[in-house]
Amino acid sequence: MYTVKYLEQFTRTVFEKMGCSPEDAKIATDVFIAAELRGYSSHGMIRIKDYFQLWQANRINVKPNVRVVHESPSTAVVDGDGAIGMIAATKSMKIAIEKAKTAGTGWVSTRGSNHYGIAGYYSMMALEHDMIGICMTIANPLVAPTFSVSPMLGTNPIAVAVPAGIHPPFVADFSTTPIARGKLAVAGKKGEKVPFGYVQDAKGVPSDDPDILKQGGSMVTLGGTREMGSHKGYCMSAIVDIFSAVLSGANFGPFCPPSVAYLPVKEEKVGEGTGHFFGAMRIDAFQTPEAFKSQMDKWIETFRAAKPAKGYDRVLIPGDPERENEERISKEGVDVMVPVQKEMKEIADFLGIDFETQ
Amino acid sequence: MYTVKYLEQFTRTVFEKMGCSPEDAKIATDVFIAAELRGYSSHGMIRIKDYFQLWQANRINVKPNVRVVHESPSTAVVDGDGAIGMIAATKSMKIAIEKAKTAGTGWVSTRGSNHYGIAGYYSMMALEHDMIGICMTIANPLVAPTFSVSPMLGTNPIAVAVPAGIHPPFVADFSTTPIARGKLAVAGKKGEKVPFGYVQDAKGVPSDDPDILKQGGSMVTLGGTREMGSHKGYCMSAIVDIFSAVLSGANFGPFCPPSVAYLPVKEEKVGEGTGHFFGAMRIDAFQTPEAFKSQMDKWIETFRAAKPAKGYDRVLIPGDPERENEERISKEGVDVMVPVQKEMKEIADFLGIDFETQ
Repeated sequence: MYTVKYLEQFTRTVFEKMGCSPEDAKIATDVFIAAELRGYSSHGMIRIKDYFQLWQANRINVKPNVRVVHESPSTAVVDGDGAIGMIAATKSMKIAIEKAKTAGTGWVSTRGSNHYGIAGYYSMMALEHDMIGICMTIANPLVAPTFSVSPMLGTNPIAVAVPAGIHPPFVADFSTTPIARGKLAVAGKKGEKVPFGYVQDAKGVPSDDPDILKQGGSMVTLGGTREMGSHKGYCMSAIVDIFSAVLSGANFGPFCPPSVAYLPVKEEKVGEGTGHFFGAMRIDAFQTPEAFKSQMDKWIETFRAAKPAKGYDRVLIPGDPERENEERISKEGVDVMVPVQKEMKEIADFLGIDFETQ
Repeated sequence: MYTVKYLEQFTRTVFEKMGCSPEDAKIATDVFIAAELRGYSSHGMIRIKDYFQLWQANRINVKPNVRVVHESPSTAVVDGDGAIGMIAATKSMKIAIEKAKTAGTGWVSTRGSNHYGIAGYYSMMALEHDMIGICMTIANPLVAPTFSVSPMLGTNPIAVAVPAGIHPPFVADFSTTPIARGKLAVAGKKGEKVPFGYVQDAKGVPSDDPDILKQGGSMVTLGGTREMGSHKGYCMSAIVDIFSAVLSGANFGPFCPPSVAYLPVKEEKVGEGTGHFFGAMRIDAFQTPEAFKSQMDKWIETFRAAKPAKGYDRVLIPGDPERENEERISKEGVDVMVPVQKEMKEIADFLGIDFETQ
C-alpha cells in the first residue's frame, strides 16, 4: 500500500521532470490521484507509463499555450496546443465555470488535447461553485456503430455532477459502452471469457473472447445488440463525438489520436488532437440554490428509498460507489499492482528520481 | 390512408373546439403530424384521445399563460401553467433559441407542462437557426433504477439535432430504455412474448411477459441488466429527470403526473406538473457555420461508409429512418389503425365536427 501523499509526490515529480511547470504538474497529478481514490485504478498509476512514452516520442507538449480561439458570452473553443489531457481539460472547465458566472451557463469544446483521465473529475469542479458540471470526451476508436464492424467511436464517457444540500452530490460518470475497455484487458490476461454482448468479431458476430479486438473485432455500444437498444448507445456515443470533436475542430471518431505511444500517429488528420466538451450551469440561473438543493435532497432520498430487487440490499445514487471508495482508499492507502510498480520504477530511474517498489 | 392535410385539419379543429387559440391548436397539431410523418405513430393520432380525456377531466389548461419565471442571459425556467405539452414545449424551445441568439447558447427548464409528443420535434426547431437543438423530458414512471423493483423513472427520452451542410441533419431521438413503452403494449395485444431484458417482475426477476407491468413489474433502463450496463441507462435517465424536473421545479421521478386520464391524479406533489429541458447552441458560438457544416458532412460520410456487419447492407446515421419515413408517408398518406379511427370519430361526434372513418 502506498500513501496518497507518496504517490502524489512521485507523480508531480515525474511531470516536472518531463518539463511541466509546477502548476501544470500539480493539475495532472490531482486527476491521477482522484482516479485512484475513486476506485478507477484503470485511469491511475497504470497510465503514467503511457504519458511518459508519449512524452519520449515527442507526442505531447509539456509547455503548451492552452488558449481560447473562439468565443461568445456562454461558449468557447479552446485549443489545447497538444497538452497533456488533464491540463487542457482543467483549464477548459475553469473557462466554462467563468463563463457561467456571467452568462448563467458556460460551454467549452476543446481540441488539440490528449487523453484526460476520468471525466468525473472535471464535472465535479463545478460543485464548489454551486453549479452543475458536465463533461464528455472522445477516446481511442474501438467501438462499432450499430449494424457495423468498423471500430469508429471511443468508449466516449459522459459525466454529470449535481450539487445537493445535506446529501453528497449526484455524480454520474459512465462510458457509452456496456463495459470499460480495461475490463476486457483484465479478462484477457486472466484467460477468462466475457459475457456475450460486450464485443463482436470481425464479421459482427457476438463473441465472448476478450482478445477479439486484436483479431479485427470491436466493442459495441451500450445496449449491446439492436434488439436491446444498441442504436441508442450509438446515438449517445455519436453525440459525445460531435460535441467534443466536431464543435471544437478536433479529430473526430476514427481519427482520434491514440492515447498510447505503441500505436502509430494516424496518417489522416481531420482536425487538431483529441476533443472534449465541458459544461457548467449555475444553479441560481434556474432557481434559488436553497430551493434546488432541498429538492435534490428529496430526489436522493426518494431514489435511495426505492425497493431493492431480490438479492440486493440497496439502490445506489450515482456517485455512491466512488465516494465510498474515496473514503476507504484515502484511509487505507493505494494498492498499486506489482507490474505497475515496476513501470513506475523504470520511469523513476530514467528521470533520476526516487521510487520504492513494495 | 388519410392525407396529411385531412388529419391536420381534424387535429386543429379538435384543439380549437377544446378551447385552444388557433395559434396554440396549430402548434399542437404540428407536433402530432410530425410524429405520424416520422413514423412514430405511437405519438400521433393514437394519443389524441388521451389529450381529449385529460381536457374532459379538467386536467389540462387550454388557455395557459406560458411564461418565464426565472432567467439569466443564457437560461430560463418556464412555467407551462398546465398547458398541453406541445404548447409549453414549443414556446420553451423558442425561448432557448432566442437566448442563444445573444448569449451563444440558451437553456430552458420547464415545469407545469404535460406530455409533449416526440422530443425530436423540438430539437429540430434549432436547425433552421444554424443551431444544435437538445430536448429531454420526463414521462410516466414505469422504469426501475438498477437493483430496484420500484418504477420511478419514465422512458425519459433525449433528442439532439445537429445541422450539416450538403447532407440532411443528424437527428438522434431515443428513450433511455431498451424499448419504448408502446412496443410492450403491441406485443401484449398480440399475445406475444418479448425478449428477456425489457421488463422484470415485481421481484426484479427478468420476464418475457409484456403485460408484467400490470402485475407489479417494471421496465428496465438501457443496458437491461447490471452486467450489460443498466446502471449507465439509469444514470442517463436520472440526468434527464434532474435537468427536466428538479431544475424547473416540476414533479420529478415517481411523482410525474400521468399522461392519461384513466390514471388518477397523484396525491403527493413535489412540484408543478411535468418537466422538460431544452437547449440551443449557436454553431457560430464555436466555429464558422461553414467550417462546422463541412466537418459534419465529413462526419456523416465517414460513418455512412462504415463496413456493415454480416447480414446488414448499410450503417445508419441517426435520423435516417425517420427522414425516410417522412418522405414516404407524406407521399403515401397516413395509415391510421381502425380502433384509433373509432376513437377519433367519437371525439368528432362529441365536439360536433366531421371525421370519416375508412
